[in-house]
Amino acid sequence: MTRPLVGIVMGSDSDLPVMRESARVLEELGIASEMVISSAHRAPDQTAEYARRAAERGLVAIIAGAGGAAHLPGVIAAYTSLPVIGVPIQSGAINGVDALYAIVQMPSGVPVAAVAINGAKNAGILAAQIIGAARPDVRARIDAYKEKLAGQVSEKNALLAELGIDGYLARTGARG
Amino acid sequence: MTRPLVGIVMGSDSDLPVMRESARVLEELGIASEMVISSAHRAPDQTAEYARRAAERGLVAIIAGAGGAAHLPGVIAAYTSLPVIGVPIQSGAINGVDALYAIVQMPSGVPVAAVAINGAKNAGILAAQIIGAARPDVRARIDAYKEKLAGQVSEKNALLAELGIDGYLARTGARG
Amino acid sequence: MTRPLVGIVMGSDSDLPVMRESARVLEELGIASEMVISSAHRAPDQTAEYARRAAERGLVAIIAGAGGAAHLPGVIAAYTSLPVIGVPIQSGAINGVDALYAIVQMPSGVPVAAVAINGAKNAGILAAQIIGAARPDVRARIDAYKEKLAGQVSEKNALLAELGIDGYLARTGARG
Amino acid sequence: MTRPLVGIVMGSDSDLPVMRESARVLEELGIASEMVISSAHRAPDQTAEYARRAAERGLVAIIAGAGGAAHLPGVIAAYTSLPVIGVPIQSGAINGVDALYAIVQMPSGVPVAAVAINGAKNAGILAAQIIGAARPDVRARIDAYKEKLAGQVSEKNALLAELGIDGYLARTGARG
Amino acid sequence: MTRPLVGIVMGSDSDLPVMRESARVLEELGIASEMVISSAHRAPDQTAEYARRAAERGLVAIIAGAGGAAHLPGVIAAYTSLPVIGVPIQSGAINGVDALYAIVQMPSGVPVAAVAINGAKNAGILAAQIIGAARPDVRARIDAYKEKLAGQVSEKNALLAELGIDGYLARTGARG
Amino acid sequence: MTRPLVGIVMGSDSDLPVMRESARVLEELGIASEMVISSAHRAPDQTAEYARRAAERGLVAIIAGAGGAAHLPGVIAAYTSLPVIGVPIQSGAINGVDALYAIVQMPSGVPVAAVAINGAKNAGILAAQIIGAARPDVRARIDAYKEKLAGQVSEKNALLAELGIDGYLARTGARG
Amino acid sequence: MTRPLVGIVMGSDSDLPVMRESARVLEELGIASEMVISSAHRAPDQTAEYARRAAERGLVAIIAGAGGAAHLPGVIAAYTSLPVIGVPIQSGAINGVDALYAIVQMPSGVPVAAVAINGAKNAGILAAQIIGAARPDVRARIDAYKEKLAGQVSEKNALLAELGIDGYLARTGARG
Amino acid sequence: MTRPLVGIVMGSDSDLPVMRESARVLEELGIASEMVISSAHRAPDQTAEYARRAAERGLVAIIAGAGGAAHLPGVIAAYTSLPVIGVPIQSGAINGVDALYAIVQMPSGVPVAAVAINGAKNAGILAAQIIGAARPDVRARIDAYKEKLAGQVSEKNALLAELGIDGYLARTGARG
Repeated sequence: MTRPLVGIVMGSDSDLPVMRESARVLEELGIASEMVISSAHRAPDQTAEYARRAAERGLVAIIAGAGGAAHLPGVIAAYTSLPVIGVPIQSGAINGVDALYAIVQMPSGVPVAAVAINGAKNAGILAAQIIGAARPDVRARIDAYKEKLAGQVSEKNALLAELGIDGYLARTGARG
Repeated sequence: MTRPLVGIVMGSDSDLPVMRESARVLEELGIASEMVISSAHRAPDQTAEYARRAAERGLVAIIAGAGGAAHLPGVIAAYTSLPVIGVPIQSGAINGVDALYAIVQMPSGVPVAAVAINGAKNAGILAAQIIGAARPDVRARIDAYKEKLAGQVSEKNALLAELGIDGYLARTGARG
Repeated sequence: MTRPLVGIVMGSDSDLPVMRESARVLEELGIASEMVISSAHRAPDQTAEYARRAAERGLVAIIAGAGGAAHLPGVIAAYTSLPVIGVPIQSGAINGVDALYAIVQMPSGVPVAAVAINGAKNAGILAAQIIGAARPDVRARIDAYKEKLAGQVSEKNALLAELGIDGYLARTGARG
Repeated sequence: MTRPLVGIVMGSDSDLPVMRESARVLEELGIASEMVISSAHRAPDQTAEYARRAAERGLVAIIAGAGGAAHLPGVIAAYTSLPVIGVPIQSGAINGVDALYAIVQMPSGVPVAAVAINGAKNAGILAAQIIGAARPDVRARIDAYKEKLAGQVSEKNALLAELGIDGYLARTGARG
Repeated sequence: MTRPLVGIVMGSDSDLPVMRESARVLEELGIASEMVISSAHRAPDQTAEYARRAAERGLVAIIAGAGGAAHLPGVIAAYTSLPVIGVPIQSGAINGVDALYAIVQMPSGVPVAAVAINGAKNAGILAAQIIGAARPDVRARIDAYKEKLAGQVSEKNALLAELGIDGYLARTGARG
Repeated sequence: MTRPLVGIVMGSDSDLPVMRESARVLEELGIASEMVISSAHRAPDQTAEYARRAAERGLVAIIAGAGGAAHLPGVIAAYTSLPVIGVPIQSGAINGVDALYAIVQMPSGVPVAAVAINGAKNAGILAAQIIGAARPDVRARIDAYKEKLAGQVSEKNALLAELGIDGYLARTGARG
Repeated sequence: MTRPLVGIVMGSDSDLPVMRESARVLEELGIASEMVISSAHRAPDQTAEYARRAAERGLVAIIAGAGGAAHLPGVIAAYTSLPVIGVPIQSGAINGVDALYAIVQMPSGVPVAAVAINGAKNAGILAAQIIGAARPDVRARIDAYKEKLAGQVSEKNALLAELGIDGYLARTGARG
Repeated sequence: MTRPLVGIVMGSDSDLPVMRESARVLEELGIASEMVISSAHRAPDQTAEYARRAAERGLVAIIAGAGGAAHLPGVIAAYTSLPVIGVPIQSGAINGVDALYAIVQMPSGVPVAAVAINGAKNAGILAAQIIGAARPDVRARIDAYKEKLAGQVSEKNALLAELGIDGYLARTGARG
């Protein structure tokens, strides 16, 4: 098995269905990752230890997802010089805006790279882009991925032109 | 010198003019405190160590103030069983609502007691109330403090009745 | 029966399913509590009387939960020198952010310790921490509780490493 | 001196420069009012007593202004059946939106009539409209007041047509 | 049939299930009302005419409910000197906060009395309080109504004390 | 078939059920439109090309709908001098307020005409009004449309007067 | 003098320094406009009359600016079939977000085209684009205007490359 | 001169005083950068061309800062596979929260790495971390930078312990 290059950490196993999207897109782009449940508040020593040892274990980027007072990405960033990507998880009464603020508004000196609320897929692509900064083969796979996305838009557009609105909705079952 | 019972921690020395209000009201209520600059992100080991040793050093409550992605109170709460009071500091573009969310929305299992944005004075009173839960002499001082507040309201009201609006404003210089 | 040390007050019986979490975790930590329905607006005299007599009845902390224009914790705090913990209840069109603001933004002199929206469990733990400030046996139980939480994170992490994402989700039924 | 029909209560003397607008417009509409400093949190007994006795003292409406966790209007409404008008005061980090929520989101059974943040003048007009509901002389004065407002708009419009933008700004010194 | 004293206007018939609460509580307090569908935007002339003739038709207060860019209460207030109570309706993506702002932030000179989002019941009580300002019989009915509310709180509290949390929830079926 | 005058562009086919409302109301007002799926981010060249050629292809207005970081209307506006109408789509954790901000807060020099969140129908009417600015026949159809709306309000009002609240709700099935 | 094609209406003369930007850019694009002070609340009849007669007077678009509970654009849109552009004015405690919501969240059937808070310049450009939909000469002027904007960006960029950051800031005096 | 590895792009020269912080910290970390003024809306072709050619020109990361409807980072990300870091600029009535939403809420497939509002310094550090992912020398410099930050916290803390609050404030001139 390939050594993982990206660590995907989440504060609770309830975040797993969202965070697995990071692992999936990384796999699609040919990059191995590992998945870890930790918690900045309930298991602070484990979290600090994981972050401290990440670089020497060969990781090149860490994705961390958390909801509410989402401290996990920032705490990991405090203990490593690797780039840390934060995924605010949609949950609770404030619906993830609390997590977004707690992740993105980091103080000067210790950045976290925030993506959209529940944006675990984009977190995976961003990790691949970071790896691709030094590896042309990875960058080429991202280029291909982006072309595939553009192609899908063209196909949908052609289908809509062919079938009309009602036909398109009937065929694809797209819903608002 | 009296051994401090309350630790007052802040993430940056720019928070000092706000956080000193905690120390002042505690002194007024006869409780010794200590003042510490630490940072959950720039000095994570120091912060963890301070929190871990707080109880054995004789502290009975910790007040932590921070702005932005305010992780300091939550990180301290992760390392101690003492009650932790969080003061969101007003700063930056989101004006402290980010700090409020990052402090109050703690996950289940690790509470932080949030006070108002810039509410360092109330944080001090709350710490005194916590100490007073087991010490009638402290509770008596808080009772006296509350009576003093009620008395001040009565005095202002009497003065307003006597002087009228314009006279009152001229005398006290109160402004909106 | 043990005399209750914590009073748990709520503005409406619709808050009961949330607020019972305070009572449960206090029981788990070996602390007796009592549960009261009152209302700062519909039963102001009863509420004031409860707060005024709380200390002499032997309570050492009060937890108060309310939604909307959540005045209950602040009104109770006006009538007692005991520490008051406020639980904003998620309800209505503003989803509890109104209750959070109405609880946390108390004026200088009369603090309320706010926890997360619907954070009744943490309110209970915080009440235990306040009692533990003067009772080493309670603090020891909270320490054990925190270790249990850290252990649960480790177990989940080990299980995820063993089963992989799909296996973990199949076994635990965790959902986003 | 005429017996006051409207009580104007505020939580702090720092609200006086805003709240005096209520008194001024009431005087302009021929209605006597009284001005009181009280506080739902620092002087709860005085506040409750004021509200309980308001009707028997001859008041027909109460205006209450407060900032932050603005409980004053709601607490007064708990103790009286008179209509209570709440004025959220702009202050602190949340700028009065906290006060607005704490005033307007009252629970079922105990209404407060909220006006705009810092809208003390409109609170006075609303109190006059309430009195006018049963007194045609007052309603006539409000009708005249509204006609005066419409006339002022017409005059400004005519002046703008005559002078042009630059001339108008030079003459009136209006600024954005 | 009694002549209506309160006009209840709404911008759309989809607001009817919320706004009927105003009519119900007014009926309970012995005050006749009328129910009208109008729209500040789709039927502006009808709306203006209704407001202009309200006083001469014998109405003493108008309740207006609307969602989104809720102009209805403000437009009615522009055409009458009667007190106008605005009910922000919860709807659409912003969930009624847009309606709250559009109702409560009226410019100087033309007040609207805002109640809570979906607070139609309180709008009815407020209208009764306005009428009660000049009619002791109405005020007495509101006093009785308030006592009934306080009694209900006491009964629920006694029931909770008797049955305990689980028994209470089983008996009443209350849910969060 | 008539040449389309309005281009309706959306960022994803999941927006189609909302955006079809633009096409429907334009058809009702006798104006031909075309429907296009594009994406400012996944298909930027296609989007730029569509906008650049819109005027020469005979379009006179473009409606663009998008959710989240909704760049589509602004990107189209960058490449054309035609009026561009932006429809923020309700989606994700921030519910469309993110899309509203991303559409309406355009920098000086490149306007987008924003309508309500999910306001695709109004976007269609606005496009018709733009066309009507130079075509009296179109303006006449909009006048007729507005009269129809006013008539519907009158009919509903009459029905409510006839049937009463319960009867009306039973007949129409209107719900809150 | 040329007959005005665009009416620029504002709710208060304090909006004039912002709203004059609409007139200026229209003049730059060769389109005559007129400037009117009206008020949906203080002068409702004048406002309705202005809107009703706008089309017959030869206007082809109306720009309306207002702050707070900004009803002016929506009220004008209720009385005309011309396209109405709304400018939310930054003012008061909510800083213009209240005005934005009150302008953009119009109900189905009566659109307003919202621009950015204080976006009066863009409102003028949008009005020109609407006129340009039927007049190639106007569209050509807008095209030229857009090219000028692009040219200015290029020039600034070249200057920055030449002078470096410090030199550029010294030369231009640009500030954050 | 060293070939730049990081492109720093901003939408307006008014962003320069904020964005220069990115260049400064990169220089401190030994990484060359270039500074470019472009605009997604006023100069879309130049922006697209810059992004398309960035990788072949040897850049490994792009930092883009913009305010309001901040489309610049997202538009650049649409045209390149390099990692793009977005800096929301504080400006206008919504104070940068609009820019934050417009930058962070990117759709699936095209990520932008958001940092704090005005967080240009952290954007520079993040770009260095991305480069450091493949270059141990850069990572070592970041490690040293982080140690320096921790050391500064220790020094300030020692100074505070030595001088006390008043002495510290007098010496350092720190202000809230």
